[in-house]
Amino acid sequence: MQEARDRRRQASSGGELALLERIRSRTAGSRRRGIRLGIGDDCALLQPGPDEELCVTTDLSIADRHFRLDWHPPEAVGHRVLARGLSDVAAMGARPVAAFLSLGIPAELTIARSRKRAWVDRFFDGLLGLAQEHRTPLAGGDLAESPVPLADIVVVGAVPRGRALLRSGAKPGDLLYVTGKLGGAASALELLGNLPARTRGAIAAGRIPTGLSEALQPHLYPQPRLRQGQWLMRRGAATAAIDVSDGLSTDLTHLCEESQLAAELDASALPIHAGATLAQALHGGEDYELLFTANPAACIPARIAGVQVTRIGRMVPPRRGRARISLLTGRGSQPLYAHGWEHFQARSRAAQ
Amino acid sequence: MQEARDRRRQASSGGELALLERIRSRTAGSRRRGIRLGIGDDCALLQPGPDEELCVTTDLSIADRHFRLDWHPPEAVGHRVLARGLSDVAAMGARPVAAFLSLGIPAELTIARSRKRAWVDRFFDGLLGLAQEHRTPLAGGDLAESPVPLADIVVVGAVPRGRALLRSGAKPGDLLYVTGKLGGAASALELLGNLPARTRGAIAAGRIPTGLSEALQPHLYPQPRLRQGQWLMRRGAATAAIDVSDGLSTDLTHLCEESQLAAELDASALPIHAGATLAQALHGGEDYELLFTANPAACIPARIAGVQVTRIGRMVPPRRGRARISLLTGRGSQPLYAHGWEHFQARSRAAQ
Repeated sequence: MQEARDRRRQASSGGELALLERIRSRTAGSRRRGIRLGIGDDCALLQPGPDEELCVTTDLSIADRHFRLDWHPPEAVGHRVLARGLSDVAAMGARPVAAFLSLGIPAELTIARSRKRAWVDRFFDGLLGLAQEHRTPLAGGDLAESPVPLADIVVVGAVPRGRALLRSGAKPGDLLYVTGKLGGAASALELLGNLPARTRGAIAAGRIPTGLSEALQPHLYPQPRLRQGQWLMRRGAATAAIDVSDGLSTDLTHLCEESQLAAELDASALPIHAGATLAQALHGGEDYELLFTANPAACIPARIAGVQVTRIGRMVPPRRGRARISLLTGRGSQPLYAHGWEHFQARSRAAQ
Repeated sequence: MQEARDRRRQASSGGELALLERIRSRTAGSRRRGIRLGIGDDCALLQPGPDEELCVTTDLSIADRHFRLDWHPPEAVGHRVLARGLSDVAAMGARPVAAFLSLGIPAELTIARSRKRAWVDRFFDGLLGLAQEHRTPLAGGDLAESPVPLADIVVVGAVPRGRALLRSGAKPGDLLYVTGKLGGAASALELLGNLPARTRGAIAAGRIPTGLSEALQPHLYPQPRLRQGQWLMRRGAATAAIDVSDGLSTDLTHLCEESQLAAELDASALPIHAGATLAQALHGGEDYELLFTANPAACIPARIAGVQVTRIGRMVPPRRGRARISLLTGRGSQPLYAHGWEHFQARSRAAQ
């Protein structure tokens, strides 16, 4: 049968249909609550519960902006692409229902060479590994050939109606908390950038020296705080939340703006990651911790689902002519401006 | 206030925040049924009706693969990006609820030059124009600097539970129908490719010669068949449906495979677009018409919501060793294989 022959030829030559078949076979059987139809039709079909609303987030990752083929193992690229989307869902207090991936890559990344698996298959190892960990099936997406590798992740989450954690719900007097530690990803990125090119090449190939593995972890394999976000949502414990993806100074500014408030940040209270500087903790992005506010009467434990929670400041009314954020140090108060990441400013994060 | 000065400087220099503000102001007030929260939080929040399920589709468009800066007016690029997503929702019989756009472009496309608006603003003219026509608010997305212009569109639709039109529902004996005409987009693309570079440059700048406007329309401004898909869903008239995005031969093959059937196509019945060839009608993509099947007892009118509907064949049981599609002509029956678009095959649609 000509058609079957065509199919086999395409499968062996690494065409789109072959790649689609590989992805489809790896995501088969991953159906779960909320998904009626996955990959294979014009759309996926999602069935939220009768009392749920759905949250949707999209995050675009582009080579030499968000990752580098010569710095990052393919598994870490796949992991980080999905972590960005899951982290947004975590910040709403939602549970992930499904992920969708639009992937654009050069043809050579789809081809296995001399006993080495294709880049794209290792990318999916990382992405589907994290997806499985958080029970988030890949329910669809798109594939295209692209001269520049890129991945756009969509994550759909579900949350009981009216219970999502918004950026806009903070009240004056609310206390400010953050999960985990800050600056770890920025510090690890700096470490990666300062390594000899040969060591970095080995890391990109997936051979991470044992001594570096732990230090690079926050950058290569960040953990979205889904359990912590859902805990806060279920208890009604947080008044507002955002994930720290662009850096504390930038994301706290967003939270302040949406809540029409200002914030006082206690420098000495910041949970700075081992090896990171204060500047990295304040402005470094990609930590994917949750930043949230809570009424002073609310009971916020020191750990939520195994992750440390630290009180780092409080929300105050905005004052005309004053910065959104005041950083309180032993030497008094100083204004803190958003110094996080912004595109179209002739810089490149991974290459900066 | 330093922060406000920073903001103003960024707005005038065309940074990401400035572009975001421009987009946000253009999508403000576009809230409608089903959207509780749009741009401005970690996720958008969608509230489907209690008896609805949601469908999700993503489509990636990349410069020099799906469009060309030197061939296509920015308005047409924006229109076509959204049309691809809306067409998938149409093929499910769903109503669109919200769109999300991840846009990666070089910084120079965000900047206005010598009284000419920035490329990106004209791109949004086209995208938001079509969005408004089909009452589909842009509820979120992502922006990034990219050396290669690209746009990933996500469209979320809603459909009464269990009523979505799937590819897999066709039965042996069902008749095969298509909306509109076929081959128009492929024929227009060929016309565009054969124009003198100077004429094409004028078209890319948005000055389409009057004599060419109608002929180029099917390629530059295709119309997703949302009203027709919803009509079929509401009447329960179709047993299966797909949109013709990759070409009739490819998309009918998908429908046959998912329904585990074969199809007989009547060559003389095909509604070929004026100026198009039979090959363009059979294999040309991007017509975005609906291909659907219906029980012979179902009443399918000659027009649905103003668009012509044509019976072009019927579904038959698959036969071992026979092609999925048989093309019936005056000279008998011949096998028809999928010859539509496939990525990673070292071709480029817009450049082929």
